[in-house]
Amino acid sequence: MQTSTATTASIMAFQSLVNEIHDLNATQALLGWDLETYMPEKGSPMRAKQMATLAKLAHNMMTSPEMEEHLRHLRQSGIPEKLDTMSQALVREVGRVYDKSRKTPLELLQEMVETTAEAHKIWVEARANKQFKQFEPVLRKIISLNQRFAEAQGYEDSPYDALLDEYEPGLTVKQLDPLFVKLKSEIVPLLKAIQNSDHTPDTSFLFDGFFPAEKQLQFSRQVLTDMGFDFEAGRLDLSAHPFSSGSSSLDVRLTTRIDEHDVFSALSSSMHEGGHGMYEQGVNPALNRTPLAEGTSLGIHESQSRMWENQVGRSRAFWLHYFSSLQETFPELKRVTLDQFYHAINRVRPSYIRVEADEVTYNLHILMRYEIEKALIEGDMRVDEVPDAWATKAQEYLGITPTNDAEGCLQDIHWSHGSFGYFPTYTLGNLYSAQFFNTAKKQIDGLESKIAQGNLQSLKSWLNREIHWVGKMETAGTIVQRVTGEPLNAQYFVDYLWTKYGEIFKISR
Amino acid sequence: MQTSTATTASIMAFQSLVNEIHDLNATQALLGWDLETYMPEKGSPMRAKQMATLAKLAHNMMTSPEMEEHLRHLRQSGIPEKLDTMSQALVREVGRVYDKSRKTPLELLQEMVETTAEAHKIWVEARANKQFKQFEPVLRKIISLNQRFAEAQGYEDSPYDALLDEYEPGLTVKQLDPLFVKLKSEIVPLLKAIQNSDHTPDTSFLFDGFFPAEKQLQFSRQVLTDMGFDFEAGRLDLSAHPFSSGSSSLDVRLTTRIDEHDVFSALSSSMHEGGHGMYEQGVNPALNRTPLAEGTSLGIHESQSRMWENQVGRSRAFWLHYFSSLQETFPELKRVTLDQFYHAINRVRPSYIRVEADEVTYNLHILMRYEIEKALIEGDMRVDEVPDAWATKAQEYLGITPTNDAEGCLQDIHWSHGSFGYFPTYTLGNLYSAQFFNTAKKQIDGLESKIAQGNLQSLKSWLNREIHWVGKMETAGTIVQRVTGEPLNAQYFVDYLWTKYGEIFKISR
Repeated sequence: MQTSTATTASIMAFQSLVNEIHDLNATQALLGWDLETYMPEKGSPMRAKQMATLAKLAHNMMTSPEMEEHLRHLRQSGIPEKLDTMSQALVREVGRVYDKSRKTPLELLQEMVETTAEAHKIWVEARANKQFKQFEPVLRKIISLNQRFAEAQGYEDSPYDALLDEYEPGLTVKQLDPLFVKLKSEIVPLLKAIQNSDHTPDTSFLFDGFFPAEKQLQFSRQVLTDMGFDFEAGRLDLSAHPFSSGSSSLDVRLTTRIDEHDVFSALSSSMHEGGHGMYEQGVNPALNRTPLAEGTSLGIHESQSRMWENQVGRSRAFWLHYFSSLQETFPELKRVTLDQFYHAINRVRPSYIRVEADEVTYNLHILMRYEIEKALIEGDMRVDEVPDAWATKAQEYLGITPTNDAEGCLQDIHWSHGSFGYFPTYTLGNLYSAQFFNTAKKQIDGLESKIAQGNLQSLKSWLNREIHWVGKMETAGTIVQRVTGEPLNAQYFVDYLWTKYGEIFKISR
Repeated sequence: MQTSTATTASIMAFQSLVNEIHDLNATQALLGWDLETYMPEKGSPMRAKQMATLAKLAHNMMTSPEMEEHLRHLRQSGIPEKLDTMSQALVREVGRVYDKSRKTPLELLQEMVETTAEAHKIWVEARANKQFKQFEPVLRKIISLNQRFAEAQGYEDSPYDALLDEYEPGLTVKQLDPLFVKLKSEIVPLLKAIQNSDHTPDTSFLFDGFFPAEKQLQFSRQVLTDMGFDFEAGRLDLSAHPFSSGSSSLDVRLTTRIDEHDVFSALSSSMHEGGHGMYEQGVNPALNRTPLAEGTSLGIHESQSRMWENQVGRSRAFWLHYFSSLQETFPELKRVTLDQFYHAINRVRPSYIRVEADEVTYNLHILMRYEIEKALIEGDMRVDEVPDAWATKAQEYLGITPTNDAEGCLQDIHWSHGSFGYFPTYTLGNLYSAQFFNTAKKQIDGLESKIAQGNLQSLKSWLNREIHWVGKMETAGTIVQRVTGEPLNAQYFVDYLWTKYGEIFKISR
């Protein structure tokens, strides 16, 4: 098949427009990174203006008559099949985003921007005062805006589906409900069994000592290098909250946060962000300057970070190799055995705060949020009912009740940003990571012994080849099916938890 | 007088367009800073694309039909007088740039971009090989493009005027010629007198020791803080070549370069860049997000950097205060007296390389370049004559002859960038700085004793008030007239040199 001259011209102009939009987005990412790392403090009002201008220009280009014309031509019946696969994927992905942009009334977007700018300030204050009541009115407005957004986008079963689609394209309540039912039915008993076991790992030595920032950073950099993070195409810096920000496969910025009285958390978040960063670095460079160079979905992105953070970074195999060099770096740890350390970093304890949660309880935190968000968006819960619902669910799933709203429903920043439908992607990441890692163990000969010898590159190469390289050319669903031979299946994660924690706490199902 | 509704609407839309263009330029500046400081090395091809996209969008907005329409309306007879002074200045300055953009054929711009991208690579290679012949063909093309550019812009006397105007608006050969004649006639004899004096300051201790980077950086930061550089609105980092880059008065980035076997040069370039940076920080914040927030011209900008680098940083008064703390920081200097140090940092010695030149010989380097550039652009010199012309002038003004082209006409990057007419702004900076400093001494009670007590803020406040605050609301000519009561006058610089170096070398006119 031959493409016509008109099609060739159109696809070239289309790609060039997409490249320019992506340049603006990549620049935006750098401005955001700079804001969190090196920007002098007085720079923030100007930075906000610059970011708003870039966002506006990118939006204008995305919804421009040229874009409309290119997509109209390139989506005509018979045309897409004549394109190469990358162009096909580009037309599909850009078309998807274009359609969503066009469905969203501009005044709704603007109202959302204004409301959330205000909401963020209110949330900060309400959290400081531990008073959900202060946040309630603006949260009510945010929910109503999200409902309007869902109506504008359209959905099949639940308005919450339209919100999920923003973060995990194609994900629905119909798919999520059984996953969470499964998790609840398996993890709540696991947690009870752990709590009833005789073993309570000592974690005091993780915090008992002075672990200089420079040494921690150096250790993190060494592990990231061993993992295969390319420091010629990336960096690791410090920021108040760890994050990963990529503008292309050739420039990926990670950050971590260091507490000099905590030997493990900076390393753990470095490995987490390294997983995100290596995903971006691993995408086919031919996809750079297009949205295809990004991770295919937040859930798949999170699977990469969680795999390195947990399946690797909290595994006995990893520490078989790294514990002695950690002890060399921080001699305080010389009095601690490998098993004591391994158990300490895998302690399980229900806690109020999601971001401090262990692997076992983490998804119960997400479950609570999922149920509450869905009920709010579907109109089955009033906003003033949130604190009570939170307390009830925390008691039911975690066995604890927050003593105030800051420990409860005010702890997360997400709602103040207007983000509803985001939380479930954290759980998807955990589930995907276990399923992928299970396949990796089957396909990489002696993976765990390799890790125990400090060879992290065989896992990295496998991830590069199986998951990273395609970027957004394939959807999350296609990738998980191709790589693991089946759709997302929560059983792998449940089995992973039971096996690992069964061994540590000497319990069984 | 009242502005009409149409004018009010137009000025608001005009300002908003100008703001957005400036946001793109400010973002561009940050991308450039990042490129030189923290960008991982593989990031450069993508960075080039991002910068090209931002430049293209800014250019498109600058030459858009909206801009044309706003300027047409706002420049109509009777309208400008009705605007506030800031809007008047904005219309004038944006109009000036718009007119220049409109006069430049797009294909000429593109040819310049392509030619200089190529030329830069050729120049790097030719310089490494010390072969001007290799650079000659592309330099010929660059000169011809500059000539075409000058013809497109138009000029009164010399095509070189149109090039000067790019860097120092309004500057002409007619103004420059007598300045350089004066400098030549005064500095060549001064240099000879210095060379004939019995005194040759010892400089060996400046390079004899190990001066750790961290300590040098800390010393530079302390001096910058004392000068009044606001580290809450700026930073100091390291890069291969020192520079200053501002995106608003609230975010100014300086860089320096450290040689651990050189105790003075990093501090000196920090003070130089600090002078640039404090200019940008000192502009009225109401001018942010407009081109009026930038320095009014390269010459005035350079006057600020040279004043802090030389009039302050190479003065005995400054070191009366700072020498003991430098000795504390670098104990190697404890065996050196204040006078030995002061003389060492003011040694005068003709050298091949401009960027290593002292205050006395520096402008002779610029003079050579000015004469050669002007002759090339005016068609009075062939490109193949450059090396000989260079050798002749170096011998005549400096008394030395380069042994190869890398020490001679290939040393500077500027021509490979296509920049003709830029060099004279360095000399203007030196002249302005002496003239301004002379006025400062008259207007600030006991300025030199203040400096000798470590009080640098009185000079800084004076510069803020007299020069910085107006930004580009006034032209260079207006500022120098307002501040010093007369137009640019080279006598102040000549007197400054004779006084200072007369004392050091015990010579007189």
